Amino acid sequence: MGKVKVLVNGYGVIGKRVADAVALQDDMELVGIADVVGDWRVKMAQRKGYTVYCSVSDPKRVEDMKKAGIDVHGTLEDLLKNGALDVVVDCAPGGFGAKNKEALYDKYGVKAIFEGGEKHEVAGLSFVCQCNYDEALEKAEAGHRYARVVSCNTTAACRIFHALYTNFKVSKARMFLVRRATDPVKTDTRGIMNTVVPSTFPSHHAPDVKTVIHDAIPDLYSVAVKAAHTMYHFHLYDIHLEQAVTREDIIEALNKEPRLSLVRMSDGVIGLGAVIEISRDVGLPRGDIYTIPVWEDLVTVIEGKEVLLAAACPNENDVIPENVDAIRALTLIEKDWKRSLEKTDKTLRIPKVLY
Amino acid sequence: MGKVKVLVNGYGVIGKRVADAVALQDDMELVGIADVVGDWRVKMAQRKGYTVYCSVSDPKRVEDMKKAGIDVHGTLEDLLKNGALDVVVDCAPGGFGAKNKEALYDKYGVKAIFEGGEKHEVAGLSFVCQCNYDEALEKAEAGHRYARVVSCNTTAACRIFHALYTNFKVSKARMFLVRRATDPVKTDTRGIMNTVVPSTFPSHHAPDVKTVIHDAIPDLYSVAVKAAHTMYHFHLYDIHLEQAVTREDIIEALNKEPRLSLVRMSDGVIGLGAVIEISRDVGLPRGDIYTIPVWEDLVTVIEGKEVLLAAACPNENDVIPENVDAIRALTLIEKDWKRSLEKTDKTLRIPKVLY
Amino acid sequence: MGKVKVLVNGYGVIGKRVADAVALQDDMELVGIADVVGDWRVKMAQRKGYTVYCSVSDPKRVEDMKKAGIDVHGTLEDLLKNGALDVVVDCAPGGFGAKNKEALYDKYGVKAIFEGGEKHEVAGLSFVCQCNYDEALEKAEAGHRYARVVSCNTTAACRIFHALYTNFKVSKARMFLVRRATDPVKTDTRGIMNTVVPSTFPSHHAPDVKTVIHDAIPDLYSVAVKAAHTMYHFHLYDIHLEQAVTREDIIEALNKEPRLSLVRMSDGVIGLGAVIEISRDVGLPRGDIYTIPVWEDLVTVIEGKEVLLAAACPNENDVIPENVDAIRALTLIEKDWKRSLEKTDKTLRIPKVLY
Amino acid sequence: MGKVKVLVNGYGVIGKRVADAVALQDDMELVGIADVVGDWRVKMAQRKGYTVYCSVSDPKRVEDMKKAGIDVHGTLEDLLKNGALDVVVDCAPGGFGAKNKEALYDKYGVKAIFEGGEKHEVAGLSFVCQCNYDEALEKAEAGHRYARVVSCNTTAACRIFHALYTNFKVSKARMFLVRRATDPVKTDTRGIMNTVVPSTFPSHHAPDVKTVIHDAIPDLYSVAVKAAHTMYHFHLYDIHLEQAVTREDIIEALNKEPRLSLVRMSDGVIGLGAVIEISRDVGLPRGDIYTIPVWEDLVTVIEGKEVLLAAACPNENDVIPENVDAIRALTLIEKDWKRSLEKTDKTLRIPKVLY
Repeated sequence: MGKVKVLVNGYGVIGKRVADAVALQDDMELVGIADVVGDWRVKMAQRKGYTVYCSVSDPKRVEDMKKAGIDVHGTLEDLLKNGALDVVVDCAPGGFGAKNKEALYDKYGVKAIFEGGEKHEVAGLSFVCQCNYDEALEKAEAGHRYARVVSCNTTAACRIFHALYTNFKVSKARMFLVRRATDPVKTDTRGIMNTVVPSTFPSHHAPDVKTVIHDAIPDLYSVAVKAAHTMYHFHLYDIHLEQAVTREDIIEALNKEPRLSLVRMSDGVIGLGAVIEISRDVGLPRGDIYTIPVWEDLVTVIEGKEVLLAAACPNENDVIPENVDAIRALTLIEKDWKRSLEKTDKTLRIPKVLY
Repeated sequence: MGKVKVLVNGYGVIGKRVADAVALQDDMELVGIADVVGDWRVKMAQRKGYTVYCSVSDPKRVEDMKKAGIDVHGTLEDLLKNGALDVVVDCAPGGFGAKNKEALYDKYGVKAIFEGGEKHEVAGLSFVCQCNYDEALEKAEAGHRYARVVSCNTTAACRIFHALYTNFKVSKARMFLVRRATDPVKTDTRGIMNTVVPSTFPSHHAPDVKTVIHDAIPDLYSVAVKAAHTMYHFHLYDIHLEQAVTREDIIEALNKEPRLSLVRMSDGVIGLGAVIEISRDVGLPRGDIYTIPVWEDLVTVIEGKEVLLAAACPNENDVIPENVDAIRALTLIEKDWKRSLEKTDKTLRIPKVLY
Repeated sequence: MGKVKVLVNGYGVIGKRVADAVALQDDMELVGIADVVGDWRVKMAQRKGYTVYCSVSDPKRVEDMKKAGIDVHGTLEDLLKNGALDVVVDCAPGGFGAKNKEALYDKYGVKAIFEGGEKHEVAGLSFVCQCNYDEALEKAEAGHRYARVVSCNTTAACRIFHALYTNFKVSKARMFLVRRATDPVKTDTRGIMNTVVPSTFPSHHAPDVKTVIHDAIPDLYSVAVKAAHTMYHFHLYDIHLEQAVTREDIIEALNKEPRLSLVRMSDGVIGLGAVIEISRDVGLPRGDIYTIPVWEDLVTVIEGKEVLLAAACPNENDVIPENVDAIRALTLIEKDWKRSLEKTDKTLRIPKVLY
Repeated sequence: MGKVKVLVNGYGVIGKRVADAVALQDDMELVGIADVVGDWRVKMAQRKGYTVYCSVSDPKRVEDMKKAGIDVHGTLEDLLKNGALDVVVDCAPGGFGAKNKEALYDKYGVKAIFEGGEKHEVAGLSFVCQCNYDEALEKAEAGHRYARVVSCNTTAACRIFHALYTNFKVSKARMFLVRRATDPVKTDTRGIMNTVVPSTFPSHHAPDVKTVIHDAIPDLYSVAVKAAHTMYHFHLYDIHLEQAVTREDIIEALNKEPRLSLVRMSDGVIGLGAVIEISRDVGLPRGDIYTIPVWEDLVTVIEGKEVLLAAACPNENDVIPENVDAIRALTLIEKDWKRSLEKTDKTLRIPKVLY
């Protein structure tokens, strides 16, 4: 089987990382990236050697991008017409994926991965590698062409819940999220300052988790607020078990789980700032870590059956390996979820132990 | 009965507000304020006409304050020796109250009110007016001389819980607090930036609430994080009832409760920033409101018996009326909690409806 | 002469303060306020007893405001048609003033005050009381009906420059402004986070100052950046004199100047946070102070002829007294700028000494 | 000549980067790093394969580090006694360098590099590669053993001034710095929030620049404030020339200068946030770039002889290459500054063009 030909549509916070991750896979070929403007972001893509396409079939846009100094190689639709792509990873802003699906992916019969900004219904399949790779395989074998990599928060929650529900009988969970306000690059205009802003209660995260883990945890609610910081969400979990456990049981389960890592207040990791510094020190590009740091010494068991967990969600990058795995599941080039996960972790150099 | 003679020891964020509040009461006399330095804060106290004392019996400190331009009228100990005070409201930084109690208040047999920075044991009586004024009266009648006004967060929680447990059968509650990082005036050096910092899990708030409401809610836990803002804490409550309720039941209970006020996202009150702007627009000095804003349209009832509430805690000032009421309870000048509360609310112009 | 009948159009950060200030004047009558929505802001105006009008002549808007619970008394245009107003203070968002002038004020021949969000050309007269009240009188006597109260930054700069050019020969000045990012009430959506954002170089402030002080300082440039805070701009001035001066000369000139106040690092006023706390402690509604705090101990004289000054600009409120004075100048009810200024300062309780 | 044996003393924000940079040089050997605690930072150093020493000759400290899980190989003093080091790069917190010099480096006659937290007098030689490598060589040849790599801000200013004074006749310059408040990893406790804090006027930066460029610019002053962000300082320069220039002249000079890079608002680089995102996208570890981004489209020439420049100072890393070059100068292993600079730039992959 030849390499899977992939294009990343939308070169923003997620798109640029997915492009780099795909380029590292020996079973995939990054045909190029597509965007709609020619600012510094796209200029960097070009300097990096990525072939640049225009996301939209609009000669005016192509012209503007060329004027800005981009060597546009054509439009996404040109590529689709020519059958040059196996999979499009759609990293356009939330809502555009649904439009692109209708206008392009349905029309040309290409496979597509959507991100968490799209609703479950757009893809009909929501995906977190360690939770439901097999479900994705099954659907793909039946001819289903779409998958949605869920949002950073939902991905983090699914990994944590997976550690718990595969090891214990979990009856109920409440999630409280303190979200970062906006991405570092958008802090010029979209920030929040000196405030906390509640979301609608309950928040969409619990229903979103259910699109992946289904009924593994029967009673699930979440609430979320935005706080005045720019990187990493803070997660608190209040999880009820139907069996008695110890702190050690929980820590062992977290330790065994892929793409989760333990940090400790007692090592000086006293907040998101320290977790981010650790991430940068890991040495991967952009300070990415892909794994979910969970505070080992904040694991609290109340009266044997209620567990409190605190975690940091690396919002820019925890979903990147999921995109790579989703491509494999959807194209059926790898039938074993653990082999896909391990290959992705190795190529992206995802750390299990952070320090 | 003559007026109760009160001195405020420590003229910081809480102390300056307590001094102003005491000065407004016709059954109290503000003898003066005491502090240990002569910076702009104490200069303002003097401009306001407050008599300034030195908190410590140290001629060097007195001299330094005089050099800075303060007309120091003596030391706190001088006043105590002369029997010039009925009550000291100790607003010194956390931990100093315990020291002052041992060194001064025990020695001179003066009554004293402590703030939330001190442990319950320092006072042996923790106080929130609408919850346990009668307990305070009882102890005072038995000769007890100390009370602790609990912290802003605990005060807010006690008011909210009081609205619930006096109207419904509450079995269990979980509190999640997103705390402000430091006071506006200390933002130069003690801030947190672009981070979220978890506290020890569970946090001290739940045990603190129990010092006031005792076993009114049998199963109570709290967790807290610090976020990167400077005013008002954000509170989320997850409360379990043993009876079925509707949203309307809950809203009615909140509406009846003193020192709670309702705000609405649908009126544009979409976060702490808007609540703070409303507070400033109320027009009281320093933008204080003393009441706890609760979001009416975020009141959520899950399956009839679990209630989610979101509230803002005006951390600088919700405890101020409690200090006034605690003076009355401790000195037995008012035996009816509602009369004390109403008198305080009237003199401080505490709004029930914010807009 | 009867009272000047004033309406405030636009009840935002500036409008609500102008309304309160006008309501305090015995030579003015606040006919009401006008706005276009019915959120908590306008509800508060109504609770305060202000008569509410709709800014636009659109029955749908009026209806929506009524549905939100506002007792709308008609539209601004109704009032203008009936000759019910002498002056409109237009505090609508930047740019709307120009539209309102064309659509309403020109048409009905009413006098109008614009704010700093409008260009000088809209009013043809820019105003800072102590700099050019006489120019305003002269134009008003000649039938000119409009004045623009310049922005908070320009107002602050004009006061500071006035202290200098009326006492010394000033050849040149450079201003460097570190602006607050957005208003506290808009921090939910319009903030900047963890960044500094430069404006176009040079910034509009120097040309804006020249609309008021004309050629009092021949060579004037300014640059500005936005920083990640929400209240008060920080100003740095580098001013070149054609004569030798001492620090004491400069401090004396600042001390004599109205609506300027001195603060000192040595009193613990070590940044904007402390200045804001002082402002709140002054005790006026919303923590307003109207005066410009200048750091006395940062006044630096380099080689006798170059002066460095650092100041805080209370961006929400320094222009409020200017609006009151501008109404007097434009309506010719007071011909002496000092009498207007003193009357305004007294009614608004503007402090000269802050602590 | 064998490799220069280097130890980095103090593994914080600067130390960890210097260690990595030294490890990349083929003419240097990183003997190890030294620190005084065993938190996550030092654990990461150990995971990376760096040999860890204890900075102080205190068995208790060594024991504590071992208990925390660090395999301590001895103390810095042990190494010095054994003559195992040619150069110590002292990256301990400001002020400790002076103490270490007296206690250790003077005593054992080792060469040492200090950082900008130390005064010029500690080293007697302040260093920025492109400005005074030759001065360093000369002193080293005369037996001088110490150099100070100046602070990030001073380094940035020296590079920019070098571009100007080597191409034009510069008479005078004023620097205005908007500093980041604290390092990302220290944001938990040392931040400033929602404020701007002025430094003493004038600030230490201008005198500091003079320790490197001496009298290349005769009249030089600087002022600085701290603003509420955590990464990158913002620099504004107001530079007076004795000759007429155009914008193009200035841009050309900046373009030719090593370790300076141009960015443009028109490419969407509208503040520090965007510059930091670009830095991360460059792909080097920790998002470092080492070069100074200057806004090309903000270069402003006023009346031919006054130049305004705006730049971002990557405060964590611009000094890292200077440390490598300083080692070469001090040990005389490279006599040509350009060859040292180019070797360092190549090994650290320092970008000249950012996008």
